[in-house]
Amino acid sequence: VRTDWVSFLTDYGVYDGFVAACHGVIGAITPAARVIDITHDVPPGDIRRGAVVLAQTAPYLPPAVHLAVVDPGVGTARRAIALRTPGGLLVGPDNGLLGWAADALGGIEQAITLDNTEFHRNEVTTTFHGRDIFSPAAAHLAAGVELADLGSPFDPAELVALRRPVLTVEPGRIGCEVLTVDRFGNVQTSAGPDAIAAAGLRPGVTIELAAGETWHQMPYGGTFATVERDRLLSYVDSAGRLSMAVNGGNAASRLRLQAGDPVEVRTMPERTPDQGAR
Amino acid sequence: VRTDWVSFLTDYGVYDGFVAACHGVIGAITPAARVIDITHDVPPGDIRRGAVVLAQTAPYLPPAVHLAVVDPGVGTARRAIALRTPGGLLVGPDNGLLGWAADALGGIEQAITLDNTEFHRNEVTTTFHGRDIFSPAAAHLAAGVELADLGSPFDPAELVALRRPVLTVEPGRIGCEVLTVDRFGNVQTSAGPDAIAAAGLRPGVTIELAAGETWHQMPYGGTFATVERDRLLSYVDSAGRLSMAVNGGNAASRLRLQAGDPVEVRTMPERTPDQGAR
Amino acid sequence: VRTDWVSFLTDYGVYDGFVAACHGVIGAITPAARVIDITHDVPPGDIRRGAVVLAQTAPYLPPAVHLAVVDPGVGTARRAIALRTPGGLLVGPDNGLLGWAADALGGIEQAITLDNTEFHRNEVTTTFHGRDIFSPAAAHLAAGVELADLGSPFDPAELVALRRPVLTVEPGRIGCEVLTVDRFGNVQTSAGPDAIAAAGLRPGVTIELAAGETWHQMPYGGTFATVERDRLLSYVDSAGRLSMAVNGGNAASRLRLQAGDPVEVRTMPERTPDQGAR
Repeated sequence: VRTDWVSFLTDYGVYDGFVAACHGVIGAITPAARVIDITHDVPPGDIRRGAVVLAQTAPYLPPAVHLAVVDPGVGTARRAIALRTPGGLLVGPDNGLLGWAADALGGIEQAITLDNTEFHRNEVTTTFHGRDIFSPAAAHLAAGVELADLGSPFDPAELVALRRPVLTVEPGRIGCEVLTVDRFGNVQTSAGPDAIAAAGLRPGVTIELAAGETWHQMPYGGTFATVERDRLLSYVDSAGRLSMAVNGGNAASRLRLQAGDPVEVRTMPERTPDQGAR
Repeated sequence: VRTDWVSFLTDYGVYDGFVAACHGVIGAITPAARVIDITHDVPPGDIRRGAVVLAQTAPYLPPAVHLAVVDPGVGTARRAIALRTPGGLLVGPDNGLLGWAADALGGIEQAITLDNTEFHRNEVTTTFHGRDIFSPAAAHLAAGVELADLGSPFDPAELVALRRPVLTVEPGRIGCEVLTVDRFGNVQTSAGPDAIAAAGLRPGVTIELAAGETWHQMPYGGTFATVERDRLLSYVDSAGRLSMAVNGGNAASRLRLQAGDPVEVRTMPERTPDQGAR
Repeated sequence: VRTDWVSFLTDYGVYDGFVAACHGVIGAITPAARVIDITHDVPPGDIRRGAVVLAQTAPYLPPAVHLAVVDPGVGTARRAIALRTPGGLLVGPDNGLLGWAADALGGIEQAITLDNTEFHRNEVTTTFHGRDIFSPAAAHLAAGVELADLGSPFDPAELVALRRPVLTVEPGRIGCEVLTVDRFGNVQTSAGPDAIAAAGLRPGVTIELAAGETWHQMPYGGTFATVERDRLLSYVDSAGRLSMAVNGGNAASRLRLQAGDPVEVRTMPERTPDQGAR
């Protein structure tokens, strides 16, 4: 992978100058690098949220060095790493943040620890490795430095991994969890294309969904405005996952769901979509 | 219009990776494209807010492909369109979002429906046409593809239009509405340069302004710090519109006004600005 | 200093199109300019916050034209200025915003008032000098125009200066103030490397910190995860300043501190770090 593109995801926010300092470090090392900010609004320390957004966004970017820093363990013994995949390079802390993106980009071909201090900033602080270690690494990779030059290889099987999302499927039933909630309040579950197919969900059916102790009926398929304003629907979202929305509203609030919550889905006996939408 | 510039306005927020996915799609198709983000904080589905910000910002950008997506009807029969104007190109849904910007850029010269699927992403989802249809169209236009190649022409008179803002003027009186409120709480009305001139507002006069059932007196003209801290003023804002601010404060809160609210303005009999400011 | 880089800091927010209009003005004048947004989330009119973030971020950027606009006095007699330093150029209002950054970049070599209207936009409004005066100046400087061409020289000693932060030091004691609070709630004080050295703080000691009437004990040194989750620590932050954090939490909330609040720090008699952390 040879690329000028660097993508950038953090929990730094944009209230401070932290993101800009990283942009500056990258630009000073590799003026030709072009940075696409994925998001910097990962909730502080929420590695899981960062991993989900990174994995779902990276495949739509040009081949890139994906720089991701959600790093509550900064300055401790946790590894600083870089990974090579068929679809791009990944740079960040070894705390689970990068694994799902590596899968989405085709799997890990090479893994190294960023322990070659020649490629760190002259002064490395204890609390801002984004600026001092990760951004320089990403910049040098974007300039064409070989992954192996940045540090020592390690076995990708040793990578810290996040708990896999809950997912059980049988015909007509899916047990899953909320993977994430987006800015619109749309609720994305852990059920992807395989689970949806295995459960036999087809556009036009009605589903029942248990969130907590309440069951909600809603149609499956289509898009937001397929249902009347303020009504629930379930659909396959733009990342291929079973999701719930309210047309013109906020499904997470309506269903009282947040990331990690368990969700039960079952198909209803067939009737007309009109009845189903009530 | 030949341009590398793409401007980008949505209601996607930057909490998720949606905006970045669009940047990525644009960059992959047209690496030379340079994107200026106008805002992604349009409130979800608020077409009117998006239309106001787009129309007031686009004229200050270099000639560009203006990509705008506030699209509550995504995936339904609403048209996906592109427009040519003397000042640039516009790409987005046909729901009223683009019309005021087209006016601000000199009027519509050519209108097409984005129905040539060769210029869509391979897979088009039902809920993310920003990534799958609009961003590719903008990228191809920035690369020099002809508007006519992207789809079928239609009559601009068929464009979906937003309700025109309320505006009535006579000497000494303006009936208008709040067009928008900015991050500082400054209240911008629908009264532009012509209305201001026709009403005979001149710097130094005092106006009375009815917001709801309350009348507020304030001077007209100058800038924020023309009045004492925490005092109301009215002035011509940077887009040429009659606006209200509080020096060091929030006029929308003070006046209890939000977008769409009616506002009555009348000039007071002449007296000294000092009295008027009380 | 010859540079394509322009950094950009404001209190404009990104809810409106103000920042984009400035990007557009810069791009139209100097297409080769590359803009790094530092932050646009300075609280409205908070010059001091803008000055802190600018001064702490600019040194990590490539040599640049630093454009900064937090300008509650826009349109009044306050000067519009540009400054040359060994580390870059600064453009903004003369209200204290630029001074600390000038110090951080090596001190002022040349100061001019932006009074050459040839380098303003054709039409200058009373309330948006960011777009009409400051952005054009930054763009022209990035294109290589000489500072002296933009306006009349003045004596840097005449610059409006902010109140210096409180700072008194003796061995074992520091009297300081909160300089700023970041998005994580980490509290940065006015005590920099010299004060830390003069007070004799050494990693491993325990400190007592008075915030209001309450004394808090915490270890000094290390990084966030040096202490157990939800515990306070003090440390030298990435800008070299004495700071307080809560591992996985928000120190500003815990200590009830905000920018400007006085903070007393004293070292405790030596004991083991374990005891100190309780």
